[in-house]
Amino acid sequence: MRQFVFEDITSEEVARRTGVYTPLTDSVRGLVDATIRTEVDPDSIGAARELIDRASALLRAQQSDGPHGVRYTADGTGMPWGNPAIGIRNAIAPPMVVTRDGDRRRVADVVLGAAYEGPPGLVHGGICALLLDHILGEAASAMTGTLTLRYVRATPLGAVHLEAEVVASEGRKRTVRGSLSDAEGITVTAEGIFIEPQKKGTR
Amino acid sequence: MRQFVFEDITSEEVARRTGVYTPLTDSVRGLVDATIRTEVDPDSIGAARELIDRASALLRAQQSDGPHGVRYTADGTGMPWGNPAIGIRNAIAPPMVVTRDGDRRRVADVVLGAAYEGPPGLVHGGICALLLDHILGEAASAMTGTLTLRYVRATPLGAVHLEAEVVASEGRKRTVRGSLSDAEGITVTAEGIFIEPQKKGTR
Repeated sequence: MRQFVFEDITSEEVARRTGVYTPLTDSVRGLVDATIRTEVDPDSIGAARELIDRASALLRAQQSDGPHGVRYTADGTGMPWGNPAIGIRNAIAPPMVVTRDGDRRRVADVVLGAAYEGPPGLVHGGICALLLDHILGEAASAMTGTLTLRYVRATPLGAVHLEAEVVASEGRKRTVRGSLSDAEGITVTAEGIFIEPQKKGTR
Repeated sequence: MRQFVFEDITSEEVARRTGVYTPLTDSVRGLVDATIRTEVDPDSIGAARELIDRASALLRAQQSDGPHGVRYTADGTGMPWGNPAIGIRNAIAPPMVVTRDGDRRRVADVVLGAAYEGPPGLVHGGICALLLDHILGEAASAMTGTLTLRYVRATPLGAVHLEAEVVASEGRKRTVRGSLSDAEGITVTAEGIFIEPQKKGTR
């Protein structure tokens, strides 16, 4: 397993980098949407592709060898910027912005567009699973052991709300419940057992 | 719910469109990866962003109003091209290519890079859930009712294999089991109840 990376940077430097990467990734998210919905002719698609490849070449002039990893500042601030649910550098992520509500509870509001569609006009069931797995894991500060999802009804594309709460805790094991809802109420419920990773030097 | 869309096009036209959209989306996938891993200076990032926005503007000159939907040719060939697991027009999708193995079984081999990372060097648990939900749903030709995932161990980034099989069927209800594995064996198992949508004109 790749190690967690600590970088000795200040919170000002974190803010500066956030300001550089956020608009870049937002532009890529716009492009992902445009790629799905475009109806232009093959010549225009070829021209767009050339611009995209030039942008990639510019960005690849200097890059990390492998994946982004989860980096931390010296004071322990996490920078999970490559994460496909919440990463500010990952165009796959909507991104979901998770808010703490006490130690055991997390909430998030997300707008899901064309890139998250499964059946026509509806959020892909697996995208509901991705976001629920992530927010339950954040509430637990732990990795998924088991996860059970109940699809109460289909989730329309658009604004959704997520909640997760730790309901029981025993040793390294946390039981977490959560839900995804639209304006009319709950569409998917989730319950999982999450396992806190063993700390170094302990068994 | 948005309607399924039928387009009166030949299989040659489907092949032609596939040939136009596949390289475009592959370029966008490359850009998503480059955006996560880049370490270039802010000026280069600004220049890349300008190229990306120009590409989006070219593609948006003519586009569908809403999400892509699931389109079908007149002879019933599905074109789920906007799908976030398998869509050839969706850069979020690896894409997973699902192969039929008889009526009740589906298999897929996928390579997961930096864009699918949760913990350092490992596939995000929610991405495992997305791909498993999708392949189980394809085996059942149905929508997810419940889905239970067991994370046996962490899944390293890289090549993974997925399987899904319908193990029981009663009325519109299908019980499906599946797994995700790496070269060393199974990392996540899945079991779900999937529900076939009611056909029009029936109750």
